[in-house]
Amino acid sequence: MSSKHTPKTGIGYSTEDQIFVNGMNLVDDVMGKFTFTDFIYLHLTGARPTPSQSALLDVVLVTLMEHGLTPSAIVTRLIYHSAPEAIQAAVAAGLTGVGSTFIGTMEGCSALLDEMLTAPEGSQLRARAIAERHRAERRPIHGFGHPIHKPDDPRSARMLSLAEQHHVPGRHIAALRELSAEVDRAYGRHLTINATGASAALLGEIGIPGNIMRGVALISRSAGLVGHIREEMRDPAARHIWGIVESTIPYEREQDGE
Amino acid sequence: MSSKHTPKTGIGYSTEDQIFVNGMNLVDDVMGKFTFTDFIYLHLTGARPTPSQSALLDVVLVTLMEHGLTPSAIVTRLIYHSAPEAIQAAVAAGLTGVGSTFIGTMEGCSALLDEMLTAPEGSQLRARAIAERHRAERRPIHGFGHPIHKPDDPRSARMLSLAEQHHVPGRHIAALRELSAEVDRAYGRHLTINATGASAALLGEIGIPGNIMRGVALISRSAGLVGHIREEMRDPAARHIWGIVESTIPYEREQDGE
Amino acid sequence: MSSKHTPKTGIGYSTEDQIFVNGMNLVDDVMGKFTFTDFIYLHLTGARPTPSQSALLDVVLVTLMEHGLTPSAIVTRLIYHSAPEAIQAAVAAGLTGVGSTFIGTMEGCSALLDEMLTAPEGSQLRARAIAERHRAERRPIHGFGHPIHKPDDPRSARMLSLAEQHHVPGRHIAALRELSAEVDRAYGRHLTINATGASAALLGEIGIPGNIMRGVALISRSAGLVGHIREEMRDPAARHIWGIVESTIPYEREQDGE
Amino acid sequence: MSSKHTPKTGIGYSTEDQIFVNGMNLVDDVMGKFTFTDFIYLHLTGARPTPSQSALLDVVLVTLMEHGLTPSAIVTRLIYHSAPEAIQAAVAAGLTGVGSTFIGTMEGCSALLDEMLTAPEGSQLRARAIAERHRAERRPIHGFGHPIHKPDDPRSARMLSLAEQHHVPGRHIAALRELSAEVDRAYGRHLTINATGASAALLGEIGIPGNIMRGVALISRSAGLVGHIREEMRDPAARHIWGIVESTIPYEREQDGE
Repeated sequence: MSSKHTPKTGIGYSTEDQIFVNGMNLVDDVMGKFTFTDFIYLHLTGARPTPSQSALLDVVLVTLMEHGLTPSAIVTRLIYHSAPEAIQAAVAAGLTGVGSTFIGTMEGCSALLDEMLTAPEGSQLRARAIAERHRAERRPIHGFGHPIHKPDDPRSARMLSLAEQHHVPGRHIAALRELSAEVDRAYGRHLTINATGASAALLGEIGIPGNIMRGVALISRSAGLVGHIREEMRDPAARHIWGIVESTIPYEREQDGE
Repeated sequence: MSSKHTPKTGIGYSTEDQIFVNGMNLVDDVMGKFTFTDFIYLHLTGARPTPSQSALLDVVLVTLMEHGLTPSAIVTRLIYHSAPEAIQAAVAAGLTGVGSTFIGTMEGCSALLDEMLTAPEGSQLRARAIAERHRAERRPIHGFGHPIHKPDDPRSARMLSLAEQHHVPGRHIAALRELSAEVDRAYGRHLTINATGASAALLGEIGIPGNIMRGVALISRSAGLVGHIREEMRDPAARHIWGIVESTIPYEREQDGE
Repeated sequence: MSSKHTPKTGIGYSTEDQIFVNGMNLVDDVMGKFTFTDFIYLHLTGARPTPSQSALLDVVLVTLMEHGLTPSAIVTRLIYHSAPEAIQAAVAAGLTGVGSTFIGTMEGCSALLDEMLTAPEGSQLRARAIAERHRAERRPIHGFGHPIHKPDDPRSARMLSLAEQHHVPGRHIAALRELSAEVDRAYGRHLTINATGASAALLGEIGIPGNIMRGVALISRSAGLVGHIREEMRDPAARHIWGIVESTIPYEREQDGE
Repeated sequence: MSSKHTPKTGIGYSTEDQIFVNGMNLVDDVMGKFTFTDFIYLHLTGARPTPSQSALLDVVLVTLMEHGLTPSAIVTRLIYHSAPEAIQAAVAAGLTGVGSTFIGTMEGCSALLDEMLTAPEGSQLRARAIAERHRAERRPIHGFGHPIHKPDDPRSARMLSLAEQHHVPGRHIAALRELSAEVDRAYGRHLTINATGASAALLGEIGIPGNIMRGVALISRSAGLVGHIREEMRDPAARHIWGIVESTIPYEREQDGE
């Protein structure tokens, strides 16, 4: 390990009377001038957002924040009950649930859009190939379909419409619409664009790379989970959850040598 | 456990074509109308924020977001290096560091302010008693003092000034100023109000209870940690950190029977 | 921070052909000669265990390992479902539930025993005072009582009996029996010594300090949680858990201004 | 979700006076009769171990437990410093580092051995193909090579030798030796079998499936991390680690628009 790379950081440093974060003077240039969303944008992209970029990031952040008693929320409540002295651990435990099963679909959809946008044969032909490939392999297409919201996920139409109002109906959104048309064609029926699919397009549009999109979900969901702790403080559900789980999953021993 | 309380949730539910979060229609009333900060406020307090409440929450969120290579940031980078397939776990691991050592002081300061504001003898007499009690017991006063920022933490003055510009120079901020004067008096020298102290006052002012203030720090810090992953993706520091730690902490075995 | 302490580590180091852990040559002196339990003991106390010390640590480790669908186990299963690519995060999330609510009682009982064993007036008088103090304050006594196992927790009698068979019926175990007698006297009825109480006495007996006892529970429980992942891989319960929680906790919005 | 599968659990249940875990009466059949390692084996495989199976599981558990100031250990120390009230969170944070970078190689090696053992053309021909495939693609072979231990990792020879002493020189160990010979042949030089490679073979030999091997590492490492907390309690290193990281990673802002 002799020729080691020496890393550096561009994120922050302090002097006795000044604090710099992401190249800006925190006190003079950020506090009172940046919203939290603006500052998240700067932190993730290195650039100051336009008002439209900030507005669309807000749309994604409010959309992903809260979905009721999801696995992550149940986890946070159970850990808060087990260790109320450490709410940071309860939120952290819940966030570990922002994994491939739920949020992986946002990254997967982003990868499909990127594949379309860099295809030599053009995005539409690639969209057709993607739709047919998934159809043939009977694989779900990331960003499409929803178990409850049928025929259409109401969030997606609103997200795309807001992007258009902000005059950001750019390449990612156009690609998602193209893909949607080809998906419906290949499957012979309508599959809704879901909220993770629309989120992938909006984030791509404002310059958030696919490999950090899960991070946007983590920020948003951390706020959701703190709200579950607040509700758990006032109307505890954890003991009920524990009891109902124990009472509905019967004990039954498989045969030895299984 | 026969007379069990049956909990309920007021956070969210969905139908085929509608989604309600915190009593609002997500698509019609929140998306495109609420900033992320507005929605956090609603989620934590149950009430829609005034523009000033939202602005002051933004101030706290941007102030706490990022402090460079803190223990939490180092943790997130090391875990990202160890398990790049699970950035949710890297952020979660970093958040477990938002504990009593660093953020406990915000809650501690909030408790002092609450103690003052409910004291039968009035806030100023109680402030004097608090300052003298800590002085006598040689205990640090939560929310005061800073190892680097001397004589004053530049963030605190800015935070209090912004509160005044928003015409929210209310009871918590007045209490913090009173406490500051009594601290200086008791110690015979000036101790700065630090950023966690000022944050406690601002959050108290806008109605965030002390027992959930750590949650505000968790939301803010989750954004900071995602930014460290983004930098680690482009300029990896984790191997360097590991190497420098190993090489500067010598192996030395204590005597057996220590 | 100029006069900083320079830390050192006595845990491990390696050369090209040798590895030392806790002062021992891993390959020559540990592998094939130490059980896992022996090595845990060395790691936590700095000393090699006698056969009895190792046997009693085994008793505690097998007793605490598994209690079915506890909050920690539910958490691990939900996170495994959400992020099957990262089983380390699922186990970690479950372990964050080994907090004050469940395992804090072991540390609490250990503190009571330590208080008795260092009391100037002798352990029995202090035991009486402890029992009466808790009775008067209507506080539960850590290490006593059990919601299901009545009149006696079968694990506790077995643990104390095994300690006696190993001729380790030492001061901590005697203290726990004294405390039990005084508890029954003060309350006017029999309260069982529970498994965390007996564990505290056994661990105290073999030289594990109270401030690291929670660590023994963490090691033990980590094994339990890995077993839940193995069962979840073959007979998934997470979706059922999620569904049953959602369907039994009704949505009901409190009035605004709550 | 109408035809939902109803899961069951075979892990544990309790009555007033009895506790069953993995089909055994905990008090009568396990406590005082099973070592922790025996019980782990039962929990992960459903079968009681032979003395040799238990001994080999011990070998793997002691070998993987501790490697000094690794990323996981640094993480646990930093979190303990940040939140000493929650050592469960410190251990959990460290365990999230047991990911693909370090322990993934054990699973990867196990997959190679399984591939060999089920190859229609026989294990040796498949070993040759595997070695040549990795060589051609310039990919590291999971389970081979070590940055420090050259020419041979001393742990691996000891592990394989212990397996032979226990008359368990079965198919997985034979396959690993075959693969080693083909690796040396394909690369034209000797690459050591490393400790994760040998662990994969031993665990395969005793019937631990590849998809739960990471769990064995988690159990083992949890003990290692608790030991780091114990050392941190007595000789704190976290502030030093933080300081040395901050002072050796310089602040340097990339150009805007980077």
